[in-house]
Amino acid sequence: MNTPVKVGFLGPKGTFSQVAVMKYFGSTFELLDCTTIDDVFLKVEDGSINFGVVPVENSTEGAVNNTQDCFIDSEVRIVGEEVVPIEHNLMFSATADTENFNAIASHKQSLAQCRKWLQENYPAVRFIECTSNAEAARLAKNDASIGAIASELAASIYGLEIKKHNIQDQYHNRTRFLVLSKFKAAPTGNDKTSVLIYTENKPGALFRILEPFEKLQINLTKIETRPSKNQAWAYVFFIDFEGHTEDTQVQGLFKRLDTCTAEIKILGSYPISHS
Amino acid sequence: MNTPVKVGFLGPKGTFSQVAVMKYFGSTFELLDCTTIDDVFLKVEDGSINFGVVPVENSTEGAVNNTQDCFIDSEVRIVGEEVVPIEHNLMFSATADTENFNAIASHKQSLAQCRKWLQENYPAVRFIECTSNAEAARLAKNDASIGAIASELAASIYGLEIKKHNIQDQYHNRTRFLVLSKFKAAPTGNDKTSVLIYTENKPGALFRILEPFEKLQINLTKIETRPSKNQAWAYVFFIDFEGHTEDTQVQGLFKRLDTCTAEIKILGSYPISHS
Repeated sequence: MNTPVKVGFLGPKGTFSQVAVMKYFGSTFELLDCTTIDDVFLKVEDGSINFGVVPVENSTEGAVNNTQDCFIDSEVRIVGEEVVPIEHNLMFSATADTENFNAIASHKQSLAQCRKWLQENYPAVRFIECTSNAEAARLAKNDASIGAIASELAASIYGLEIKKHNIQDQYHNRTRFLVLSKFKAAPTGNDKTSVLIYTENKPGALFRILEPFEKLQINLTKIETRPSKNQAWAYVFFIDFEGHTEDTQVQGLFKRLDTCTAEIKILGSYPISHS
Repeated sequence: MNTPVKVGFLGPKGTFSQVAVMKYFGSTFELLDCTTIDDVFLKVEDGSINFGVVPVENSTEGAVNNTQDCFIDSEVRIVGEEVVPIEHNLMFSATADTENFNAIASHKQSLAQCRKWLQENYPAVRFIECTSNAEAARLAKNDASIGAIASELAASIYGLEIKKHNIQDQYHNRTRFLVLSKFKAAPTGNDKTSVLIYTENKPGALFRILEPFEKLQINLTKIETRPSKNQAWAYVFFIDFEGHTEDTQVQGLFKRLDTCTAEIKILGSYPISHS
């Protein structure tokens, strides 16, 4: 008998994290909505889920610091990535009077992302800030005088009807999610590697990290800085680059990096998403 | 007749931003509490305040993204920096029964920063999350059944009595603030320069930016990445380094950088704070 594969994500049900799960895994898995990003990491580590899906970066808002900070203390590996376009929809319960309602509920960030459209269409409406879009959908489900701004998935989960699709002001807003596991992903020939680098707190330290990438012509796709937590004004670097840890060229990179840095933690090699 | 110099900060009155203002300017200036970071930038630009003070980085939480993003569209200059230790205190109104109260109010982040102390001393107390510590102090002022966690300055502004000083779990938590103006700061021989660099979205672009720093032995003290806003997954870099734009060496740096980057925006040169 097969035990179903369990996938955990940042809940509640109907969030864009769940949209990422469905896009990456399809719908044949057992889903578990976790309450925090830390909780997703913990449940992957203790084996109560096989995979975890967490947001790591939004194309407008930037890095999700909480996810980056979790990697500092965790031993989970990144085995995949998924990019989800952030599309907002105005939805109501089936019994609502959609011309005449009291308030629109959503997460603060989503309300901000639809600000222009809301000003043009509902200049006088009251807004209710919720902890997530999915929570707003749940609220609209239980109160016909409230509309919600949320994903199509949330509409389908909470049985709401979409009055207007794609009301976000900006059409290129996307969020990148990471797929976490306790295992490693095999090379596919089209991979990316994420590492965390602790440097010496000395002049030129960052330059000396980047030099081997340039020498070996390894394409660095992203660099982020976070506080080291051990010492005020010391930093760790999160770096993504093209290639897999099993590639000869990447192994050469690690050899060169060994001579110039305090510590490298490999977070994982995984197939590049092209969406 | 002299018009008093006006200094705006991220309010309300009693925040750590005001602590930074008092530390940097003393108390002889006219103070204006602004409701948002964007508002501080706008008021400096339109001349309704002479200086603005905004948080830019916390030693534990990292960069204040909102402040960084404001620099992308604003023409204000950085003329100074101030570092403030984040010290939390438990305070009550003079009429409160400090052994027997209903709740403790503070900003979510401050409650998290005192979590261990609160668990040891008040394991069963109810918490009220406020939009700022100063708002929590105002609440405690008006309700003797509520304690607040806030700065000494907030206690003095709202007339509260401190029951316990320095209850934060971590003693090295500090926030760096920037002083903004429409003018430039003259060289002092001990300066730092902040710039914003838009690179080409090409392999090796960051390395080519850092190479001139290394060649000229200019000490790069900080680098942060933010989304460019023009294009998904393109980035701008916020870089701090030692030296003043009027130094010959720094002018040499800009000449070299000109050949390898799309655009450099100088945010300001200012005396280094050693606290």
